[in-house]
Amino acid sequence: MTSGAPSGDPAPRRRGRPSRTQAENGPATRDRILDAAREEFSERGYEKTSVRGIAKAAGVDSALVHHYFGTKEQVFEAAVTIAFAPALEAPAAIEEGPLEGVGERLTRFILGVWESPATRVPLLAIVRSAVNNETAAAVFRRLVAAQLLSRIARRLEVPDAQLRAELAAAQLVGIAMLRYVIKVEPLASADLEQIVARVAPVVQGHLTGP
Amino acid sequence: MTSGAPSGDPAPRRRGRPSRTQAENGPATRDRILDAAREEFSERGYEKTSVRGIAKAAGVDSALVHHYFGTKEQVFEAAVTIAFAPALEAPAAIEEGPLEGVGERLTRFILGVWESPATRVPLLAIVRSAVNNETAAAVFRRLVAAQLLSRIARRLEVPDAQLRAELAAAQLVGIAMLRYVIKVEPLASADLEQIVARVAPVVQGHLTGP
Repeated sequence: MTSGAPSGDPAPRRRGRPSRTQAENGPATRDRILDAAREEFSERGYEKTSVRGIAKAAGVDSALVHHYFGTKEQVFEAAVTIAFAPALEAPAAIEEGPLEGVGERLTRFILGVWESPATRVPLLAIVRSAVNNETAAAVFRRLVAAQLLSRIARRLEVPDAQLRAELAAAQLVGIAMLRYVIKVEPLASADLEQIVARVAPVVQGHLTGP
Repeated sequence: MTSGAPSGDPAPRRRGRPSRTQAENGPATRDRILDAAREEFSERGYEKTSVRGIAKAAGVDSALVHHYFGTKEQVFEAAVTIAFAPALEAPAAIEEGPLEGVGERLTRFILGVWESPATRVPLLAIVRSAVNNETAAAVFRRLVAAQLLSRIARRLEVPDAQLRAELAAAQLVGIAMLRYVIKVEPLASADLEQIVARVAPVVQGHLTGP
């Protein structure tokens, strides 16, 4: 069971440990599974996506998905981490430059991630999953609160820094919901600079105000 | 086909126009259908709910649901309007009292609607449906933007009043998402007064600030 899969067949339909041929193919196969997972979760949402469906889309055996990532929740977390990668760079945008400009830099960064379809589509899928499913919400919490926001909060060095960072995030999350998801007018069509001009001081105030 | 349904049987299984007996029963039957619709949409979301399912839950024929409300989208809008009724009273909270306190009054009102499970549960169902389905999002847009926010905006009497009202709403929508839906800590467990103290000035600033 540990070798002998025909090299021309990337998806032998059988159970148990993945073959050495598959496992040795590590990085490329892993990436292919992640791509398939991102696509499946985006299209179907968390609840309707199965490890079997991801495996099929990636042209591998389900066992190989489990081998690389573990449970469906863990595949989801890995896929979300990739989709979130641009947003998770936000703390760098905070750490560079003076604290006085942090509100505008964070606002531009987050809205920029939502403005681009390439990053908006996977983000939207994650938001949809998190709103509908407790497991997906838990993944969202770990990524957004524990990684993104706590890194921003550490930079602030005030007692209620995490709450401040979350209230700043709430302003940006709410704009994302109304502008990009629900598409309420005139916000949905408003010029980005007009929004930044109104919102950056609010985000700054939450982070560093009295 | 217009009369003769046995009065002890509220749900004769047949097609066509509702009987006079059913139609005369107007207000009570209509309310029963609305209750059932709210329950069905809350439990299943917009996409998985059917007019047939609502009719069955209300113990009436599907034709009667169409008779009173029209399409599934129109039933949804009617159910959402009921669920939203407390939030739609918010403009009154704005219109009473001086404009300087409007940020705090609106913040307390909206967070109050989310704090109470009785009003939170149907709201949450609407948010879930709106995030997942374009038709439900359109209903949400009409109710929130056209009714709630434009009434607030009219009170402001400034040129970009509607955008200001939407940015204020975005702050409150984002808090609702992170505190009550995704449940990010410490925001989810934070004292309501602590949140009001930080958020009311932001909402006030959006509405009446420079």
